[in-house]
Amino acid sequence: MRKSIRKYKPEAVPDAKLDRILEATRGAPSGKNGQPWRFIVVRNKTLKEKLVPACRNQSYVAEAPVVIVGCAVEEESYQKQGGYMKSWPLDLAIAFTHLILAATAEGLATCWIGAFDESEVKKALDIPDKFRVVGLTPLGYPAENPPHKNRKQISEIVSYDKAPAK
Amino acid sequence: MRKSIRKYKPEAVPDAKLDRILEATRGAPSGKNGQPWRFIVVRNKTLKEKLVPACRNQSYVAEAPVVIVGCAVEEESYQKQGGYMKSWPLDLAIAFTHLILAATAEGLATCWIGAFDESEVKKALDIPDKFRVVGLTPLGYPAENPPHKNRKQISEIVSYDKAPAK
Repeated sequence: MRKSIRKYKPEAVPDAKLDRILEATRGAPSGKNGQPWRFIVVRNKTLKEKLVPACRNQSYVAEAPVVIVGCAVEEESYQKQGGYMKSWPLDLAIAFTHLILAATAEGLATCWIGAFDESEVKKALDIPDKFRVVGLTPLGYPAENPPHKNRKQISEIVSYDKAPAK
Repeated sequence: MRKSIRKYKPEAVPDAKLDRILEATRGAPSGKNGQPWRFIVVRNKTLKEKLVPACRNQSYVAEAPVVIVGCAVEEESYQKQGGYMKSWPLDLAIAFTHLILAATAEGLATCWIGAFDESEVKKALDIPDKFRVVGLTPLGYPAENPPHKNRKQISEIVSYDKAPAK
């Protein structure tokens, strides 16, 4: 089962594994099949180090051999998801989840990073204005094995044939 | 590999399968582990039929033995994802992706529905204002086997150590 990993071994990620992970990501569904996603695979050490301050100084970001940055193109997304929003945050989250689960299946570790500053990430990687940065994850072999985090009980999150109680 | 399925057999979904699917959903990661999700499992025929007009008259919604409605509680989510958004759309998309992939592993079919009207879904199921409706999916045994949809090529969506070209 997937876990968020914050310590990585320096060993490189084999290209064949990375390719299979990206292929699983590419196959994700999206609103009206818009596929408004772009993925930046960062392996350059200098660039990885520039991402650390953009990710609230989470230094393990630069320890992993690879960092993947998930970007969206707003206008390629379905414009009326649920009648009230553009679908790009959902689309990117679906694809990133495929990426993370495929990485797990390859024996690799990830950590979805939401605590970052979009403008700083854009500056670090020279990403043009038209792209939104939705999430980042290190990718590599785990160097820790933390316990699973607590989750809400099924009774707190599932209701049958009626609205949630709270 | 997962596909969007729009024809369903009337056969019920075994409880053991549904429970495993919900368990995989419960284990999804979320911003700051907020788990701002609620899932309504709809099996009542009258309620399923009320969802059809709320989903732009996609009648297959009511054909499946189960419909799952994914809802979010905004204030339980991480408030500064990327420094610019609340994480609930991402969190729900992550959990719904776990749900859909777990259903696939159980030999069941789904179809993430984004073309719905949130206020009509809320009316159909009497869902209080505090919840947002993020997505729905039918769940059941597939009665069709459509070809996979086209996807963008890897070269169109992946760049190495630099921003996307377009």
